[in-house]
Amino acid sequence: MPRLEVCLTPAILDVYDLAGKNVIVTDVLRATSTMVAGMQLGVDHIRPVSEVSKALEYVGVENTLVAGERNGVQVEAFHLGNSPRGWMSEEARLKGKAVVMSTTNGTKAINMALGADKIYIGAFLNLDAVCKQVAQEDKDVLVVCAGWKNRINMEDSLFGGAVAQRLSDSFEIYGDAALMMRAHYITHRDDLYGAIRQGTHFKRLANHGVEDDIQFCMQENITEVVPYYSEGVIIQ
Amino acid sequence: MPRLEVCLTPAILDVYDLAGKNVIVTDVLRATSTMVAGMQLGVDHIRPVSEVSKALEYVGVENTLVAGERNGVQVEAFHLGNSPRGWMSEEARLKGKAVVMSTTNGTKAINMALGADKIYIGAFLNLDAVCKQVAQEDKDVLVVCAGWKNRINMEDSLFGGAVAQRLSDSFEIYGDAALMMRAHYITHRDDLYGAIRQGTHFKRLANHGVEDDIQFCMQENITEVVPYYSEGVIIQ
Repeated sequence: MPRLEVCLTPAILDVYDLAGKNVIVTDVLRATSTMVAGMQLGVDHIRPVSEVSKALEYVGVENTLVAGERNGVQVEAFHLGNSPRGWMSEEARLKGKAVVMSTTNGTKAINMALGADKIYIGAFLNLDAVCKQVAQEDKDVLVVCAGWKNRINMEDSLFGGAVAQRLSDSFEIYGDAALMMRAHYITHRDDLYGAIRQGTHFKRLANHGVEDDIQFCMQENITEVVPYYSEGVIIQ
Repeated sequence: MPRLEVCLTPAILDVYDLAGKNVIVTDVLRATSTMVAGMQLGVDHIRPVSEVSKALEYVGVENTLVAGERNGVQVEAFHLGNSPRGWMSEEARLKGKAVVMSTTNGTKAINMALGADKIYIGAFLNLDAVCKQVAQEDKDVLVVCAGWKNRINMEDSLFGGAVAQRLSDSFEIYGDAALMMRAHYITHRDDLYGAIRQGTHFKRLANHGVEDDIQFCMQENITEVVPYYSEGVIIQ
C-alpha cells in the first residue's frame, strides 16, 4: 500500500525524500486556490516564479499577464493579484493567456518540490479531483503545505488532513502530522471556514480585507481541474 | 498579555525569536520525561550533551553516571538508558549524582534553544508545575517540541497543546500550530495514551519494547519538580 504523508511547512521539506513520489502542493490562502480557479477559467498555463523581479521581466510580453502578491497585497506593477475571485471577475481577459505568478509562499513551495516525480496543485476547490488523480497512480504521495513564511498554518494543514481522510482506504496514512491533521479535519469538516477564522493566519490575512476570498477558498469541490507542474509551467 | 507559541519541530526553531522568552523544551518519549523523573529522584544535576562521543568522555568520572540512547536503544557503554522507569529502579544509585545525558532528539532541542532567557524542562509528568512556573513570570513562552529527527510527533505536539490549554486565560495563544494542538489536546485529554497509540512515532518506539514506559510518560502531574537549564546543566 503506498504511503501518504503531510509536510506542514516547506522548512522541513528536506526530511522527506521526494524521489519517486507524487507531491500535492497546497497554499489554500490563496496561491493554489487561485491557480485552480484560473485553470478552470481557461488560463493556458501558469508560470510560478519565486522572485518578484523575475515576474516583472514578463510585464509587456504578448499574451501574458503577471500576477501575485507580497505579504498579502498585489504587487503594483502586476496585472492581477492573488485573489481567485479577482481572477474570476477578469475571465474574458484571462482565457487562453499565459500567467506568470509570484506569491509569498505558494510559488516558493512549488519550486522547492521539484525533486518529486510529479507536482499537483491542490486546494479545497479541487480536493476530490486531485485525490482521485493520485489514487489512480499507486505511488507514495506527499502533501506539501506552503505555510506562512515557514510557519505552519491551519488551512493548509486542514487540507493535508482532508487528503489523508479521502485516501485512508487506499494509502497508509504515515507520520504523526498526517494522522493529527486527518483527525483535525474530521472534527472541522462541516465548518472549515469557522475553524480557520480562529487562526492567527486568518486574522493576518483578514486585515487585508479578503474575507470573501477566504470564504470562497474554503469551499470543497467546485471544480474537477487538476493542474500539474511540467517543465517550468502549470498546465492541466 | 504575553504570548504562548508552540514550535512543533526544532527544524523550524529559527523562525522564532528566542530572545527574552521562556522556552519549555519537551521530548515526552522520553528524554524530558526521564529528566523530570530523575530530578524527582534526587539527581543533583543533568548535563545534556548532543554527541555520544562527548558523553563517553564522562564515563568513569567520580559521582557521575552517563545515560541516553540513540534510535531508542541505550548506548552500550552508558550506565543508564533513556527510560524513566529504568531510572526509578536505580533510585539509590542516582540520588545526589551528576548525570550526563545524550539522546536522539531531546538534548539536541535543549542545546538549540540556548538563546532563550530561560529553558524549562517539560513533560506531562510535571505539566501543571511547569505551567505554573512560566505563568508567574509574565514573559512570552515558546514550547519547543523535540520531535523525531526533525519530524513532528504526536506526543510532543499534544504536550504543546496541553500547555496552551492550561495558559489560555493568562496568555495569548498565538499561531496556528498552538491553536490546532490545543484543540487536539482537548479532544484527547481523557485518553492521551490511546491517542498516541495511533501514532507512527509510537509504533516506532513500541518496537523497542518500551510500551510500559510510554504509558508512564503519558501520565499528567505526578511531580511538582520544574527542572531548568543553567550554565550547561539542568538543575531544579
